[in-house]
Amino acid sequence: MRFSDRLALLVEERASQVVLGLDPHPANLWPEAVSRVGSVEDTPPEDRARLTADAVAYHCALAIAAAAPSCVAVKPQLACFERLGAPGWAALQQTVDTVHDHGLLVIADGKRGDVSQSAQAYGQALVGRTPGPFGEVPGLGADAFTANPLLGRDSLEPLLAAADEAGAGCFVLVRTSNPGAAEIQDEPEGAPLRAKLAQIVDELGASRIGSHKLSDVGAVTGATRPELLAELREQMPHAIFLLPGVGAQGGRAEDLGPAFAPHPAAGLVSASRSIVDAHATAGGDPALAAQAAAEALRLATWRIAEAIA
Amino acid sequence: MRFSDRLALLVEERASQVVLGLDPHPANLWPEAVSRVGSVEDTPPEDRARLTADAVAYHCALAIAAAAPSCVAVKPQLACFERLGAPGWAALQQTVDTVHDHGLLVIADGKRGDVSQSAQAYGQALVGRTPGPFGEVPGLGADAFTANPLLGRDSLEPLLAAADEAGAGCFVLVRTSNPGAAEIQDEPEGAPLRAKLAQIVDELGASRIGSHKLSDVGAVTGATRPELLAELREQMPHAIFLLPGVGAQGGRAEDLGPAFAPHPAAGLVSASRSIVDAHATAGGDPALAAQAAAEALRLATWRIAEAIA
Repeated sequence: MRFSDRLALLVEERASQVVLGLDPHPANLWPEAVSRVGSVEDTPPEDRARLTADAVAYHCALAIAAAAPSCVAVKPQLACFERLGAPGWAALQQTVDTVHDHGLLVIADGKRGDVSQSAQAYGQALVGRTPGPFGEVPGLGADAFTANPLLGRDSLEPLLAAADEAGAGCFVLVRTSNPGAAEIQDEPEGAPLRAKLAQIVDELGASRIGSHKLSDVGAVTGATRPELLAELREQMPHAIFLLPGVGAQGGRAEDLGPAFAPHPAAGLVSASRSIVDAHATAGGDPALAAQAAAEALRLATWRIAEAIA
Repeated sequence: MRFSDRLALLVEERASQVVLGLDPHPANLWPEAVSRVGSVEDTPPEDRARLTADAVAYHCALAIAAAAPSCVAVKPQLACFERLGAPGWAALQQTVDTVHDHGLLVIADGKRGDVSQSAQAYGQALVGRTPGPFGEVPGLGADAFTANPLLGRDSLEPLLAAADEAGAGCFVLVRTSNPGAAEIQDEPEGAPLRAKLAQIVDELGASRIGSHKLSDVGAVTGATRPELLAELREQMPHAIFLLPGVGAQGGRAEDLGPAFAPHPAAGLVSASRSIVDAHATAGGDPALAAQAAAEALRLATWRIAEAIA
């Protein structure tokens, strides 16, 4: 089944559009994750990266277990795993598998974009497999991934071909949630780059629309500029919007209405720190605080989506 | 010493601006690399990714040894390692170390770009270190990296801060070598995105100029559209141009003149397949063919740069 239909069914089943963002920082893990993996005294220096990565994977597993009941997907930020080298990539793989064990989808957030041969390799890394002299090597097995379109359509096509093959989805950056995005994506006035990117998303998605009227080519549209969402929805009627920036970055679920048409699954609300670090402000047990924060976001978002439908 | 000065001294010393691109495909490795690492019969299925990654690392080591005498730097394409998972990242780290053993610089080609917290993580992954509960975890230790500026200045700044700290360089995508680049980077007519990106590179580089009048903030400017180089050089007088697309993609060293001012190190010519796969057309031993191809490119490029100086 194609990604957009798998997602739509899961959104309906779980009454949720919440994506748990995982941006684990080794210096800010849940205490249980650090205490459980081992101690630095028992670990030779060359194995300390692995010990750190184990703690990251443990932390992610705890956060997933806590928030999963209120979520449809988990979005690991690849940068946070890569910085731990090979053990970090192993922790990423472990996290992907944990998400699947909980019946949720994985959106690998790496914002990759490169010329065609390299884009093909990224497709193999994220959702495909790589043939070689000793048999095929499986990739991460993500259900979807984010992609950077600066290099143009021919850089996206190999990624989409890999996604098609795997029944996966691709979220193309259209308008990101950071303040600096404006200088590039909102220029020039009258014909901003974001409109051109939206057009590309719409065109590439046209042949990839499923039975829920949603396309496998989605768009990253930050929740921090909600006034743009109506315009972007008009330009991309079938795209699933991945909306980062809720919570810590200042976006509010209440403002995201236009994202949730034509189907509740047309808008995915991604929150990271406001769920995983909820105990820092709410106090108490990290897992309970995360669970409560995820559930509150699920309810707030679902209410908006139902009002639109 | 800052990156631009380290590079300039190495370019002078080796009379070369050649960057060996490594885009290893497991199905197209030098035969020696495959036969030396082991056999599939002796390897349990769960270790075959590692066996493949070992062959990739071996292949890269052979290619580096062959081409190094004619090069100043090596540019591993991160996608090609990531697709082999954790063992692939270990092969990447091994390749970085091999390059350093040969006295060359490493340009990690990952074209990363993300919002500030994630950009900071990429900086740690590529040129920095990550603090954590079990001590610091070192990153790749690259000397420079490529970066994607679609998210704007605030996405580049954490990468540059990491580079500053490490004495590393950053090559920002300005005009890539692929045909599809035109639709995004050359639009709108009159005020193309590439000019805006060039302006950002110039401005971010202004405070990072070394004693050779070169900045640590460079630009990726494809060799496939040489007619743009004079304009880009005018917009970025201190930027080091990383010029991919020579050889297999159709670019010719002869056309790159404007890149090599104000210093021979102001233009780096990157070639991958035309060196590593030279034996496919030239015949004979892969190492000898690669050595000859790299030396021919060094001579052709150095001649142009000398004519400019």
